[in-house]
Amino acid sequence: MPKMFPFQAQSCICMPLTESMQPRIIKTSSSMISSSIPLKREVCITNHFVKTVSCTKVSRNANLEKLQNGYLFPEIEIRQFEYLQKHPDAKLISLGIGDTTQPIPHVVTSAMAQHSQALSTAEGYTGYGAEQGNKALRNAIAETFYKDLGVKGTEIFVSDGAQCDIARLQMLLGSNVTVAVQDPSFPAYIDTSVIMGQAGDFQSDTGRYEKIVYMKCTPSGHFFPDLSTIPRTDVIFFCSPNNPTGHAASREQLKQLVEFASKNGSIIVCDSAYATYISDDSPRSIYEIPGAREVAIEISSFSKFAGFTGVRLGWTIVPEELLFSNGFPVIKDFNRIVCTCFSGASNIAQAGGLACLSSEGFMALRRVIAFYKENAEILAETFSSLGLKVYGGKNAPYIWVHFPGRRSWDVFSEILEKTHIITVPGIGFGPGGDGFIRVSSFGRRKCVLEASRRLRNLFK
Amino acid sequence: MPKMFPFQAQSCICMPLTESMQPRIIKTSSSMISSSIPLKREVCITNHFVKTVSCTKVSRNANLEKLQNGYLFPEIEIRQFEYLQKHPDAKLISLGIGDTTQPIPHVVTSAMAQHSQALSTAEGYTGYGAEQGNKALRNAIAETFYKDLGVKGTEIFVSDGAQCDIARLQMLLGSNVTVAVQDPSFPAYIDTSVIMGQAGDFQSDTGRYEKIVYMKCTPSGHFFPDLSTIPRTDVIFFCSPNNPTGHAASREQLKQLVEFASKNGSIIVCDSAYATYISDDSPRSIYEIPGAREVAIEISSFSKFAGFTGVRLGWTIVPEELLFSNGFPVIKDFNRIVCTCFSGASNIAQAGGLACLSSEGFMALRRVIAFYKENAEILAETFSSLGLKVYGGKNAPYIWVHFPGRRSWDVFSEILEKTHIITVPGIGFGPGGDGFIRVSSFGRRKCVLEASRRLRNLFK
Repeated sequence: MPKMFPFQAQSCICMPLTESMQPRIIKTSSSMISSSIPLKREVCITNHFVKTVSCTKVSRNANLEKLQNGYLFPEIEIRQFEYLQKHPDAKLISLGIGDTTQPIPHVVTSAMAQHSQALSTAEGYTGYGAEQGNKALRNAIAETFYKDLGVKGTEIFVSDGAQCDIARLQMLLGSNVTVAVQDPSFPAYIDTSVIMGQAGDFQSDTGRYEKIVYMKCTPSGHFFPDLSTIPRTDVIFFCSPNNPTGHAASREQLKQLVEFASKNGSIIVCDSAYATYISDDSPRSIYEIPGAREVAIEISSFSKFAGFTGVRLGWTIVPEELLFSNGFPVIKDFNRIVCTCFSGASNIAQAGGLACLSSEGFMALRRVIAFYKENAEILAETFSSLGLKVYGGKNAPYIWVHFPGRRSWDVFSEILEKTHIITVPGIGFGPGGDGFIRVSSFGRRKCVLEASRRLRNLFK
Repeated sequence: MPKMFPFQAQSCICMPLTESMQPRIIKTSSSMISSSIPLKREVCITNHFVKTVSCTKVSRNANLEKLQNGYLFPEIEIRQFEYLQKHPDAKLISLGIGDTTQPIPHVVTSAMAQHSQALSTAEGYTGYGAEQGNKALRNAIAETFYKDLGVKGTEIFVSDGAQCDIARLQMLLGSNVTVAVQDPSFPAYIDTSVIMGQAGDFQSDTGRYEKIVYMKCTPSGHFFPDLSTIPRTDVIFFCSPNNPTGHAASREQLKQLVEFASKNGSIIVCDSAYATYISDDSPRSIYEIPGAREVAIEISSFSKFAGFTGVRLGWTIVPEELLFSNGFPVIKDFNRIVCTCFSGASNIAQAGGLACLSSEGFMALRRVIAFYKENAEILAETFSSLGLKVYGGKNAPYIWVHFPGRRSWDVFSEILEKTHIITVPGIGFGPGGDGFIRVSSFGRRKCVLEASRRLRNLFK
């Protein structure tokens, strides 16, 4: 029996990483429940130690209670951590979270360094920027990525990243909208829907939340939903090039999607964070499709385009023509959300973003993207050589590997055990991802080659 | 009658800054309302031009519909802009938004520049950081600001600023909590409450939202609410040193507040963004008060402490002991929100934050704060010399000037007209602020002296 120091025990309440360490309430002091004194509860910290804690009378947000487990990537980190605890000598290679690894081109980091240094001078110092982002950067984004598509700088809201913008868009939409997502899809769409109260309960038999429409995207359907079977929703989250499948929607597919949204009066939230990885003539923006300005918001990011995962910079486009049912422009409400819930992206990151869009910066970044896509080719060939069916990688930094008849977490664990490689279990992206794993092509070349070697030799 | 180019007219839909420019719906094509074709509406763009637009069928978020006008500071910018349109030669001095103006100490900008440059090297490049912030920075914040207060690094969540954290805390709390705010108070608390659906309708006669409890803070009450008259709410937003009144709550006041929250089982969200401006022995953190760890969250920021308004860095503390009524730790849900709706503060800003907390950085920043407080003294003396009653400025960068019997916006306009100085009308912080203006002490010395001169000579 371990020695019980109250302080140690108390510290267990902190942020237990495993569910088993969570404090378990064993007794509520009932005489106090409706009194003016706060609730006292006895909490079982370990099997051996009980302490009394004070609870507030604030109910836990029921929406957060609905959320399943941890958010996917922290969950993988926990499993990685636990594996390393057991096997401290394992030389792990991560092809997991999709974290950029290549240095940022010097022209970009120099611009950020110069901007930083200037902040110590009277001439170079600036305080708050516009919440919507610097005008020069907004215009440069419009010019670089949306030339001839009619997107104005004033429709572009610079942000600290696409994930943060998804949350802000959810605040804009509120709890009463109905939502459809691709299945599989990036988990932030669903998780923020649940947090906002748009979803019903999680159904463990189907792996789905009630009230959310899951649009199944399979290899046989060319990773596009059969829209004839999809009910109308207010909002459709759509990611192209897709995370996790690596599939870039074709022009014909996006046309179908825009027509579907137009017919239904829905708003598409199109996540094009990987658009710069497109090699063929698939659309790089939903605004290449006629009619999209009346139905679509687009979110995008410097993270994977410029290695800014840690620097934090992204943007969201809300076209002027996008209107709520009462005719009110969505852009006005999004502007209000951005001004109230955000204070702008870091000015240093914005200076870096502008340098990314200079001709020198842009060319250097294209070389980095080409490098990651060579990685993708190496990994795709590796899994193919094992007799597995591989998707994606051509227009995206992810490959999507099929293990028919198997569960994703089992495959994840087997690969980890045999090769010490971290992947992402497909089911983490929704029930439609089960049987798949996502492999990221972000990595140093020697790691990718070593991963390839291990997979070819050990994973059989 | 102006010539009507459809494109020009269309561009008016954009983001009209004035209400009069908003498109006005004049006719809805009723035959289409319940069909599968999106709503078509005729919109009156100007008095002379009508066009047909397509609306989606997505209802505007009713919470956003409740929000009054623009967010305060963009509203002031609009008035400033309009004034400059009319008086292009006016040499405006802004003592308004509270935007830092002094350069950031070199030791801090150098750290950011070095971090930026290192991102272009294989050794120095890093991708995603922990959503909660770098461990070293979390520990340094704990050590610098909360020594001996029992705050652990793991309880500190580094963010891109206090305003963004307020929005994330609101997502954590959800729409079913009841909320109290100081009146006057920083508008983001109320506005994010309204956005989340915690508030009822705005009542134009009282200037208050239904369901929100306004805790009046007046000079005669030492800027602290009479808690005996305040009903229980789930959440109490409390800002000390206060924005806008500049009052730092005394130890006795904070003790009363913590006792009030403990008795009621409420959660205090304490905004201490200006704590480094405290000169006397007022508490710099709510955790100086016994019992606060069981009832209080604290948010804070590098913005005003380090001139990081544009760099973006802040933090929020959620103590392990803070529990929902069911015993669930609030920190676990906040961690989930941060991991799902945020991707961490910019790594460059975090490197700067760490340098701020070095002994050299901290000393340099103390000098900047002393400088702003000298400004406050100059401005306080100026308004006093005009026979006005002046509050704040001693423990905060704001002074709060009383104009008994007058409306704030009138005073704002009069000062602007006579002296070309931008202030903030007190009513922008709630009905309790009417009759006051907030004057910011952020500014270059020569501007502050010129403002003082103009006020003494012109504002009579």
